[in-house]
This record gives sequence, C-alpha cells and structure tokens, in this order.
Amino acid sequence: MKEKIVKTKKPTVKSQKSVKQGKIKSKPQKVVENKTTTKKAVKDVKKTLKVRFLGGVGEIGKNMTALEFGKDIIIIDAGLTFPGDNMPGVDLVIPDVTYLQENKKHIRGIVITHGHEDHIGSLPYILKDITAPIFGTKLTLTLIENKIREHKLNNVSLNCIKPGGAIKLGCFTIEFINVNHSIAGAVGLAITTPVGIVFHSGDFKIDFTPVNGEMMDLPRISEIGKKGVLLLMADSTNIELDGTTMSESVVKDTLDHVFADNQKRRLIIATFASNVHRLQQILDLAVKYKRKVAFSGRSMINIAEAASKIGELKIPDNLIVDVEKTKNFRDEEMLIVSTGTQGEPMSALTRMASGEFNKVVIGSNDTVVISASVIPGNEKMIYGVINNLYRLGAEVIYESLEPIHVSGHACRGELRVLHSLLTPKFFIPVHGEYRHLKKHAQLAQELGMKESNIMIADIGDTVEFTTKTMTRGEKFPAGSRFVDGVGIDGADSFVLRDRIHLSEDGVIVAVVGLDELTAQLKSLKIVVKGLALDDMMVKEMTANLKNTLNQLDLRAVKSEEELCAIVKKQIKNYVFRTTKKNPMLLPVIMVV
Amino acid sequence: MKEKIVKTKKPTVKSQKSVKQGKIKSKPQKVVENKTTTKKAVKDVKKTLKVRFLGGVGEIGKNMTALEFGKDIIIIDAGLTFPGDNMPGVDLVIPDVTYLQENKKHIRGIVITHGHEDHIGSLPYILKDITAPIFGTKLTLTLIENKIREHKLNNVSLNCIKPGGAIKLGCFTIEFINVNHSIAGAVGLAITTPVGIVFHSGDFKIDFTPVNGEMMDLPRISEIGKKGVLLLMADSTNIELDGTTMSESVVKDTLDHVFADNQKRRLIIATFASNVHRLQQILDLAVKYKRKVAFSGRSMINIAEAASKIGELKIPDNLIVDVEKTKNFRDEEMLIVSTGTQGEPMSALTRMASGEFNKVVIGSNDTVVISASVIPGNEKMIYGVINNLYRLGAEVIYESLEPIHVSGHACRGELRVLHSLLTPKFFIPVHGEYRHLKKHAQLAQELGMKESNIMIADIGDTVEFTTKTMTRGEKFPAGSRFVDGVGIDGADSFVLRDRIHLSEDGVIVAVVGLDELTAQLKSLKIVVKGLALDDMMVKEMTANLKNTLNQLDLRAVKSEEELCAIVKKQIKNYVFRTTKKNPMLLPVIMVV
Repeated sequence: MKEKIVKTKKPTVKSQKSVKQGKIKSKPQKVVENKTTTKKAVKDVKKTLKVRFLGGVGEIGKNMTALEFGKDIIIIDAGLTFPGDNMPGVDLVIPDVTYLQENKKHIRGIVITHGHEDHIGSLPYILKDITAPIFGTKLTLTLIENKIREHKLNNVSLNCIKPGGAIKLGCFTIEFINVNHSIAGAVGLAITTPVGIVFHSGDFKIDFTPVNGEMMDLPRISEIGKKGVLLLMADSTNIELDGTTMSESVVKDTLDHVFADNQKRRLIIATFASNVHRLQQILDLAVKYKRKVAFSGRSMINIAEAASKIGELKIPDNLIVDVEKTKNFRDEEMLIVSTGTQGEPMSALTRMASGEFNKVVIGSNDTVVISASVIPGNEKMIYGVINNLYRLGAEVIYESLEPIHVSGHACRGELRVLHSLLTPKFFIPVHGEYRHLKKHAQLAQELGMKESNIMIADIGDTVEFTTKTMTRGEKFPAGSRFVDGVGIDGADSFVLRDRIHLSEDGVIVAVVGLDELTAQLKSLKIVVKGLALDDMMVKEMTANLKNTLNQLDLRAVKSEEELCAIVKKQIKNYVFRTTKKNPMLLPVIMVV
Repeated sequence: MKEKIVKTKKPTVKSQKSVKQGKIKSKPQKVVENKTTTKKAVKDVKKTLKVRFLGGVGEIGKNMTALEFGKDIIIIDAGLTFPGDNMPGVDLVIPDVTYLQENKKHIRGIVITHGHEDHIGSLPYILKDITAPIFGTKLTLTLIENKIREHKLNNVSLNCIKPGGAIKLGCFTIEFINVNHSIAGAVGLAITTPVGIVFHSGDFKIDFTPVNGEMMDLPRISEIGKKGVLLLMADSTNIELDGTTMSESVVKDTLDHVFADNQKRRLIIATFASNVHRLQQILDLAVKYKRKVAFSGRSMINIAEAASKIGELKIPDNLIVDVEKTKNFRDEEMLIVSTGTQGEPMSALTRMASGEFNKVVIGSNDTVVISASVIPGNEKMIYGVINNLYRLGAEVIYESLEPIHVSGHACRGELRVLHSLLTPKFFIPVHGEYRHLKKHAQLAQELGMKESNIMIADIGDTVEFTTKTMTRGEKFPAGSRFVDGVGIDGADSFVLRDRIHLSEDGVIVAVVGLDELTAQLKSLKIVVKGLALDDMMVKEMTANLKNTLNQLDLRAVKSEEELCAIVKKQIKNYVFRTTKKNPMLLPVIMVV
C-alpha cells in the first residue's frame, strides 16, 4: 500500500508526527501564523476568505466545502449520498462541482477528514473534472486508493498526513487534528488563512477510552482556541441528543457478554467494514473465546485486508479462515464477521437471511449480532432481514435490545466542550439536515455567541470573511448530480419525473399506422405495461380508438402532434374511467 | 349518528352496560358458559375450533382473524396496510378473503376491536365480497360509517356494543372488554367457544390514569382468567420495550408546558385525528390558555365533528373557529390542530411546511408541535416537513426532543400483567412482525408457559383447538390484495415487477414498419422515456438498427417474436454498452 501512495512534490508536508493524547507537549507547530504573512496581508486587505458550501449542509451526506482566498482554493471532503425514494434508478448522488471545474487551476488540494462514503465517495467522479493532490490519513487514503483502482483512474496524487501534521496549500496552512469517530484516522482541520483560523471539526466525538488509545486531541484544540479562531464549522449529526456519546469501548463489554452467553452456538456479527476499531474489538474477543474468524462480504474482506496491511487492524496469525471453510469447524469454534447491517439487498447478511447464501446456512444454533444502528430510511430493509433470520430459527441481537453499537458523532455535551475550547468568533454548523443546523446554532447561542455571528448555510452559499466580519456572499452554481448507470447528470429531473410516472401508473404505447397516400388508418396496435388492463379492456380500447380514427377525416388533422393529442385523449379517458389510473401515454404515428 | 347505526335483529345484544374501572362488581355476565352447551358439546366432540389468520401476523397492519367452529364463522377486525417501496402505484393493501368468500354463508358477524385503519380499513372492500353484521363500540362504528358512506355501500348492519357488553354469534359468545389504546372505544374480546374461552387483546396498553377515567378492565380480565382461558392472542407491537408505556395523561403535562412557554406565539399542533383523548387534552389546554381552535385537514375536521356528535369529544361552545378565519385572530389567541404527523404529501401540515397552504402561512412566530411518533418508513417524509418548518422560521417540537407523545401499545411490563391475569393454556402472539411475535413467545415462556403451548402463526395458517390440544391445521388461500386505482388485484406481481423495472431503467419503444408485400423495412421509430439518452445516441441507435434490419433477409425471419428478439438484442446491447442501463424494451412490429 505504502508504495502506491504517491507523494507529490508541490505541497509541503510539514509534519507527520503522530500525536498521542496526554503525551503531546504541543510545541509550536511550524504553521504559518497570521503575523508571518504581513506583506501578503497588506495586499489581501481587499480580499476576503470565501467559504463555499458544495454539500453537507441541509443534508446528511455528500459533504464538500471549499475555502477560497485570492487565487487559492482548497477543498474539504468530497462525499456522496444515496438516492432517495424520489430518485428511482439513480445509483448515487454527488455534488455539482461546476464552480470548481471552472476554477480548477486555483485548486491547491483536496483535504479529506476521514474515509466514510459521505466524505470520499464522489472523488472518483469529480477527479474526472478536476485535478488536485489529495491529503488524508493512512486509512482514509487506503480507502480512496481502493476506489481509484476500481475506477481505473491514473495519476492521482495521494499524500499521507499523520494526525498532528500540517501542510501548506497556497495561502492555507492545514493542521490535521486527531478526533474520535466510528472509523480510524479521522481528523478535524485547523486551517490558518490570511484572515484567521478556520476550524473544521470533521465528523467527531470525544472518546475518553478510545480503542487505539488515541483520544481526540483536546490539548491542541485548546491551544488553537487560545490563539483565536475566526470560524468554527462543526458536526451537527447528534445535536438532538443530550449528554455524551458512549465510548467505543462500551461495545466490547456488551459483545463480551454475547460471546460468554453463546459459547455453544455459532456467532455471526454484522458491522460496518470501515469501523476498524469495532472490528479490532471483535477479533480480540474471538481470540479470547477461541473462535476462528471468517470474513463475509466483499467490502469486509477488502477493507479488513487493507487495514491490516497498513497496521490499523491487528489480525493474529491463524485466526482467519476462508468463509468457504466454516463448515469444517464446529459452531462453537466459529465467528463470521459480515457486511449488511443496513439490510442492503445484495449484502452477505441479507442473502444469509433469505437462504440464498450457500457459504453460510443459517439455523437454530446461530446467534446473529447486528452491531450498528439503522440509518433512517433503511428500517424496513433491516427489519426484513431480522425477521427472516428469526424465521430460520436464529437468535438475533440488535440495537433495539442491547447496546451493541455506539454512535460516532458528538452529542450536545461534547459539542459544548468543542465550542468552549475554541470560542470561535463565528460559527457555521455543518453535517446536518436543516433541523440539526438550526439546533446547533441555538446551542452556540446558549453558550454565549451572538446570533449575528452564527450563520446557517445552504448548498450554493458563499460566506465571506474578513478578520472581523462574516457576510453572506454570492450564490454559485451547486447542487446534486445523479450517477445513473455509467452516466453522470443523465437522469435529470425530467427523466426522474418520467420514471416515477411510469412506476406509479405504467405505460400505454399506441402505434397508429397511416397510409401514405390515402391518410387512412391502416393499422393500430396498443401495448400496455405496468398497468392492470385485462385483454378484453385492451381490445375494447383498441376498437374504440379505431372507431374514432376511422370516423375522423385524417387529412384535416394538421399535424402529427394534433393526431397524437386525439389518440392520447381517447385512451386517457377510457383508462381513467375504468381504472382511475393515469398511465404515461406514448402514441407513435407511422406514415407507411 | 345514532339513528344511522342499524341494529340487526338476529344477533342477541346481551348487555350494553358500560363497565367502569373500580366500580364493577363483576356480577356474572349472561354469557354462555361451556357447561351450558352440554348437548351441543357431545355433538361437537369431533369438531375443533379453527383459528384462521388472514392478516396481522408477521406484519404490523391489515389485522384479520377468523374463528370457525362447525358452521359458524366470526371475523375479528378487517384492516388494511399501506404499500411498501416495492409496490409502486399501489394505493392500499388488504387481506385476501377468498376463504371467507367461499364460506360466506357461515359468517355470523365481524367484530371490530377499535377504529384504526389497520383494523377497519379493508371493510369497504371486503363487504363487496361478503355480507355480515358488524359489531363495535361507538367511535369505531362512527369511523366505519364514514367509510361506508364514502364508498356508497348500502345495507350494512352496524351494531353498537358498549365495553362490558356481550353478543352471541352462532356458537360464539363475545364479550367486549374495555382496554386503553391511542383511540377511544378500544376493546379486547373474551370469546366463549364450545372448546373454551379465547381471549383476544386487541391493541392495548394499561393506562392507570386514562383521560376518560375508564381504565382497562383488569378486574373482569382477572375473572375471565379464573374461569380458565384456552387461548390468548395478544398485541406484540411494543414487545421490544421494557417497562410500561406512559399514560396518555403525561402528554397533557408536556403540552401544558408548551402552552405556558409559548404564550406570545401562535401554536400549531399536529396529531392523529382519531386519537380523541389526545384531542380532548389539547382542547382543554386551549380553553385553559384562552385560545381559539381551528381544525385543519379533512380527516381532522370529519373525525372531530363525528366524535363530538357521539359525545366522545367534548368541545366547549365558541371554541372552534373556521381555519379560514384564523387570520382574524392574534397569534397568541390561536391554536391550529392539524393532520399530517407522518409527513403525508397531501396533508395540511406538509402543505403548510412547503408554503402551499394559503389558509395557514407559517412564520417566525409559530411553534409547531408534532404530537405523534414516526411510523417506521415515514422518517424521511416527516423530517422533510420539520426541516421545511424550520426554514420558514418556525420553532418545531417533536418526539426526538420532548415526550409529547406516548404509545398506545403495551410494553413488556403490561404484557406480563395480561399473561399473568389470564394464565391461558395456549398462546399465539399477534399484531407484530415475526421478530415481535418471536419475542412475545419468549416472554410467555419466561412466564412459565411450555414452548409446545405457544405457536407463531403465519398468514394462511389454521390453528385447531380442542379443549386440551392446539395443533397446526391446513393452510388456506390467504395473502395480500392490492387496491390500485379502482381495481382490486389488478396490480399483480407481474405488473409490479414491470413498474419497478420501468422506474429504474425507463422504457424504449421501437416501432418497426414492414412492407406487407416485400417484407422490407419501410419505417422505424424509436421512443425513449425515463432514460437519459441524448438525441445523438437515439439517432445512432436508430441508424444501427436500420442497418441491421436492412441487411437482414426479413423473409427468412420466421415469426414476429423472432424479429422482436433481434430488435431487442440490438437495442439492449447498444444501451447497456453506452449507459450500463437495462431499460424495458417494447418492440412493435407493424406490417403495412
């Protein structure tokens, strides 16, 4: 893996030291402070820092923010989101990066806070439009590398930065600050700009007992707070929850009980492949309880392998067996670790539950643990999987019943800590639907910020900063692009509207063949799909239409459009009267 | 209302006394006890009680159970369910009642436990197939009456029974037992059959401080338990929750705080129209805080009016104003009570939130309270509404934040009480997905029942009972029917498969006109819908196909099917290669 991460020469990799909580002496980082930019600062008096929101505000998903000062642009994250119910056939939704494409020569780099899909998922698509070196921590880059390989992209510059390290990209100096999250290698960013420090939290929680011992770097955050922070942008996901998020370590205790209580049974644990710390705890328990481990599901196998190669996951020798070979072991000797926590239709767990996964046949001696929470919108799918597992006789342990999962996002208590350590001048909540952003803004006010110093941004908003002011700037072209098959942007709102129409009411094709010479009706065929019309009704509808067209002086019909309208009206009336449905009507006129 | 509820003469209305908690002396009801059926019992030795599950097991929705003994059938509930994501265009899902239709002469009555859609919603449809008198409490019948009027059904016999009352239908005697639920007039049923008492809980919780003072009739349930219960069927909805469900009265305290904290603002409260007790509490608070009330949303207006007419809802004089007139009042004088707690697209609240409801324009002096929980699957819709309300400047109070709603279903604590009072010989959990039924079965075992005395039933299962045995009987035809437009059953699995296909990949129609004499290609038209092919691609595809067809000796093509296959293959390959999509292909061959 290491050799594949190409280090570009342009960006200066300032520091790559790992910062360990408690150990850090927080000696001054070699970052560019405001005072050192005096000359440039004079020139920049009229320039403002522009923060542009390309995604991740007013939504949870496709996070992407750009910072622009003069001719320097840096991008924070490049995520994707999954399509909603109103986007049938769409595979993925990515940010519209028209603005970045038009200003691509100014882009100095893409800085990634962590390797979740909503932060890295659109990279393979936007890298077709823009070229820029990518900066991230080890696991983040490993996950990006997988994507780049899959999409067969060349010449992508991946630059590994350790938490605690800093880089200079144009006029920006970006320091990577270790945070805790549900994936290893998550960082917040302290970005020194010509007008002050911008702190971006990334996705974070404060875990006082993290699995890898590396706590969120609160000492460094305090120091940055003391220097003075111009703008804070912070994760709003869990703003509706009071208190603090439980430590990842709590899960180990619950899982330990599960292992202890199920010593005669086969264990199957489903979890997110990228939650390497969770995976580590599960593997540790397998060792403790003398079970072999089989990984199941493509992403589980790939990510476990990659994380192990870079040392983020420690897999003891002789622990892993191929999932094909689990049948050679007794139930009590086996642990299967699987994908499919969200009931994804093609995932290993879903296929096990529906009895379509030959490698693992579920039975009454299985205990299945779903170690994840349900992402809103996935309830029906995952509960479908759970019901099926029960039907096959398995025991199922899931979040409604036991604390076998903890969130990766800060609750109100932790957010208060971040705000209080940084005491920023301005605040823009990010990573949330509008309700989350609004509540996070209210929390900041409760902590003493002035309402006028807080802004809720929309996608396409520019917010401009001087050392003393925050103002709402111009709107720029931004929004969603749909990845649909191999195409991007193909499925526009008209295509989606047609698809929804087709899905609700079906389609009727009426082919009208007219004689070239006489303009008489020569032939008529009606095809119905996605609509329950019996043969008799289709015959009656065809006969009616034939009748109408025969009675019509077709020479008097001025245009094909007019004839289509006549055909549509006739069919529409018949169908609505008999079925109360409004199918899509496609008349085709053929002059032959 | 009263005069419209026709009392049939056939069924004997044994008692209609209202039973008040604490007051009941529980004098023996005039119900038919087993011992009084000695003669018949001899004849019935070989007969078994058959409990047939038509819906509501393995799902939450479309509850329907039939009890059959000899030539007598009674039906408990007749609900509907709302279509899932895999049923595009379907309006409603109702139980398949083929079995009942085939045995309709034996049906003695339909007994309804309460007026929620999942218990009464399929009545207007199944009453087209079967005829039977309907029995329920006052509000239940009022809600059924609304449906019957809407569907213009005649000669439906509605029979009002008070909690505590009993009726005899064939060999069955059915006693209505008052229970607490999120709708007024909910009952459980104690059904005396020739082989023993069957107790059906209906949907229930135990509310020690119910709004109308009528607690679940635990004394009567104890008495029935002492007599000996053959079979218990009980609500499993909240089996995953420990403890007990909060009393409806708790909501009043929370809402009182909301009224107190928002005395200068306009208040809008969204709740389920049928939750008459919730509505009563809201109206009482409006009186206390000197606000006028406007109902918004058709079902809110209809149900409030109907409930008030039958005395279930007490609306003080001069409290209600028309929603059109709210503008004549100051914000602090107004309370709007609205539908739309689930973000239903056409509901009053959704339209307010999207600024499309002229009668109520949301602004920064509005506080909106959503006094309901989110039904799984509706998360995205309701959070969309909440986000929009915030965008318009309103404050929004919803369940994630405050206890402004309580469930209507028993948690584990209450279920333990029911099981312990009844100590049934056999148990079948109902009203739950498989996972709920399974856990409810486990709870019964924890309370000391033998595993062999518990059964989990599927839709289409018959379970047979003698006084001493429970056995799984024959399967009967049962399942789901789709209401789609005006049709029932129209949208079968093939139609739905087509709709899903159309919605994901769109449709391509290729009309091939062949010369009647020469069999040469005369004309070719391709129409694309729901798929992003630009004009150039359509032209190229048409040209390619023309080319292929011209090169082909069309006289050698044996059938229309064969030609269609050639057309399909060519288009499919082109489209998949260029877009990775697989649209539905509709070739139409026209010989002209």
